[in-house]
Amino acid sequence: MAVYTEVSDEELTRFVAGYDIGAVLACKGIAEGVENTNYLLRTEKGSFILTLYEKRVRREDLPFFLDLMEHLAGRGVSCPLPVRRRDGAALGELAGRPAAIITFLEGVWIRRPHVEHCAAVGRALAAMHLAALDYAGRRPNALSVPGWGPLFAQAEGRADTVQPGLDAAVREELAFHAAHWPGELPVGTIHADLFPDNVFFLRGRFSGLIDFYFACTDILAYDVAICLNAWCFEPDQAYNATKGRALLAGYRSVRPLSEAEIAALPVLARGAALRFLLTRLVDWLNVPPGALVKPKDPVEYLKKLRFHQRVAGAAEYGLDA
Amino acid sequence: MAVYTEVSDEELTRFVAGYDIGAVLACKGIAEGVENTNYLLRTEKGSFILTLYEKRVRREDLPFFLDLMEHLAGRGVSCPLPVRRRDGAALGELAGRPAAIITFLEGVWIRRPHVEHCAAVGRALAAMHLAALDYAGRRPNALSVPGWGPLFAQAEGRADTVQPGLDAAVREELAFHAAHWPGELPVGTIHADLFPDNVFFLRGRFSGLIDFYFACTDILAYDVAICLNAWCFEPDQAYNATKGRALLAGYRSVRPLSEAEIAALPVLARGAALRFLLTRLVDWLNVPPGALVKPKDPVEYLKKLRFHQRVAGAAEYGLDA
Repeated sequence: MAVYTEVSDEELTRFVAGYDIGAVLACKGIAEGVENTNYLLRTEKGSFILTLYEKRVRREDLPFFLDLMEHLAGRGVSCPLPVRRRDGAALGELAGRPAAIITFLEGVWIRRPHVEHCAAVGRALAAMHLAALDYAGRRPNALSVPGWGPLFAQAEGRADTVQPGLDAAVREELAFHAAHWPGELPVGTIHADLFPDNVFFLRGRFSGLIDFYFACTDILAYDVAICLNAWCFEPDQAYNATKGRALLAGYRSVRPLSEAEIAALPVLARGAALRFLLTRLVDWLNVPPGALVKPKDPVEYLKKLRFHQRVAGAAEYGLDA
Repeated sequence: MAVYTEVSDEELTRFVAGYDIGAVLACKGIAEGVENTNYLLRTEKGSFILTLYEKRVRREDLPFFLDLMEHLAGRGVSCPLPVRRRDGAALGELAGRPAAIITFLEGVWIRRPHVEHCAAVGRALAAMHLAALDYAGRRPNALSVPGWGPLFAQAEGRADTVQPGLDAAVREELAFHAAHWPGELPVGTIHADLFPDNVFFLRGRFSGLIDFYFACTDILAYDVAICLNAWCFEPDQAYNATKGRALLAGYRSVRPLSEAEIAALPVLARGAALRFLLTRLVDWLNVPPGALVKPKDPVEYLKKLRFHQRVAGAAEYGLDA
C-alpha cells in the first residue's frame, strides 16, 4: 500500500495528453501494490491504472513486463493491457519516474479464498503459462536460488532478532537448495507473485490477473509452488489439502504436470516459502523511517517452510492419482 | 492516506446488496483521507466512494455530516451525495464500522494552487456558507478555543522536542485567544478543513467540495481564515497576498464580509494556524507503531502563526478597499 510519488495536476495533464484517452476526470492514489505508485485514472474514455515505477523496479525490465501483458492479452488471458501513447510507446516518464497507463481490470480480490477460488487460480495460472510459451522476452529470476544468498546477506546476523533460530534455519535451507534445486524441469514465463491480491474475481468467477512486475523466466512448476504457498494455507498456517487439490487439479486440467514436475513439488514449495521468507525478512529489518508500508510478517513463511520440510511426497499437497 | 479497515468480498457483497446500485465490479482502497477508510467502489450503476468511519469520528456526529451533504447537494453545492439504502438509511455498518456510500465526485485536487484556484475556493466557500444557512443540524466545534487547551495537554512538555521554544509559544497563544477570540460574529455551518485536497477542479474549473467530516457550527469568517492558511502560503511559508486577495474577493463576491468580520480576520487566522499546529503536533508526537500515515509537519503551522502574529491589520491579507 503506497503512494510514493505525488503527481501535480499540470504534470498529469501533460502526460495524459500524450495518449488518445481524452481529458482527466479524476485521479486517485490507490492503497494497493507495495512496489510502485498506482493511481486510478478516470478520463473521458474510461478507467485506467496509471503506474509510476519506483526504484525497486529496474527500468530496463519494464519492456519485458509491458510486452508480456500485451502478449498475454493478445492470447486471450484476461489481464491489463498497456495503453500505447500517440507516439507508439507503452512507456513514458512522469514526475521523474518511468510511467505507464494500463487498462482497468474489473473485479475484486478475494480476502479469504475458498476451494473454488483455488481451482480457478490453478486454471488461470496454467492458461497464462501456455499463452506465454511463444513470448520472446526473457528475464532471469533474480529471486531464485542464486539470488537468495545475497538477499539473506542483507539480513544476516539480525534474523534471530525476528525469531530465535531463524538465522541457522535459513542457512540450512540455503544449503539444501544449493544441493537439491531441480535443473531439468520445463521453463517458461512465470508470474512469480500470484497472491490473492493479484487475482480478480467478479461475482464469484475469475476475471483476471494483474501485477506482472515479478514475472520472469523460470521453472513453470515453481509458479505452481508459489501459488500453493499463497493460496492453500489457512490463517493459522495449517496447509489445506482440499484447496491444494483444487489448485493442482485446476492447473492440470489446462496444462498437465509431468512426473518430474510433480516429484519436484516439495522442493519447489520449500524454495518458494524461503524466497518470500527472505524478502519479508529483509523488508522487516529495513523499514525506512516514515515508511508508508507496513511490512509483512516473515514468520508466516517460516511456518510454511516447516510444513514443506516435513512433507514426505507431492501426494501430501492433495494430488489426485 | 490510509486503508485502516479491510473488507472481505463476502461482507462487501452483502453490504452493497442493501443498496439499489447493482453488483460490485471493483473496489479499491484509496490512499487519500487520513481519518477514515475510503474505497473507490465501482458497481453496475456507476462509481461511488465507500467510507468506513474509524474511531476518530464519533458515530453520533455522522448524521450531521451526511445530512449536511444531502442538504448542500439539494441547494446546488457540488459535493458528494450520500446514497440511501433500500431501507432509507444513509448510514450502515460494515466490518464492524459505521459505513456509508456516497456519490463519486469527478475532478482532481490541485497540488500547487494558482491565484485562480484561490478565487474559486473563496467563491465556493461562500456559496457553501449561504446554502447551509437553513441547515437545521448543529454541531459544536470541538477544535475551537475551548478544545485547544485539552488538545495541547496531549503534547505538553514534549512540544520543545519538535522545536525549541514551541511549548512556551503555544501557551502564550492559548492565553491570547482566551482573551481575544471574537464572540459576536455571524455563525453558521463551516467546512473547517477546506484544504486543497478537499476541493476538486476539472479542466481548471471548480468542480466540487469533499470531506465534510470536520464540519461544525462556528464563526463563518473562521472558515475563511482556515482557507487563508491552507491556500495562500507558498511552500517556504511566505504569505502570498495576491492569492489572499483573490480568495477574499472571491468569497466577498458571493457573501459580503461585515466590517467586524474583516477586523477579526487576523485573530481568526492566528486561531486557525494554532488549531492545525496543535492537531499536527499531537499527531506528530503520537504516531502509533506500524502507522500507515506519515504525520504532517507541525512547524509549518508555527511559521504561519508567526506571520499572523505580526500582521498589523486585515488589509495585509490582501483585502481590496
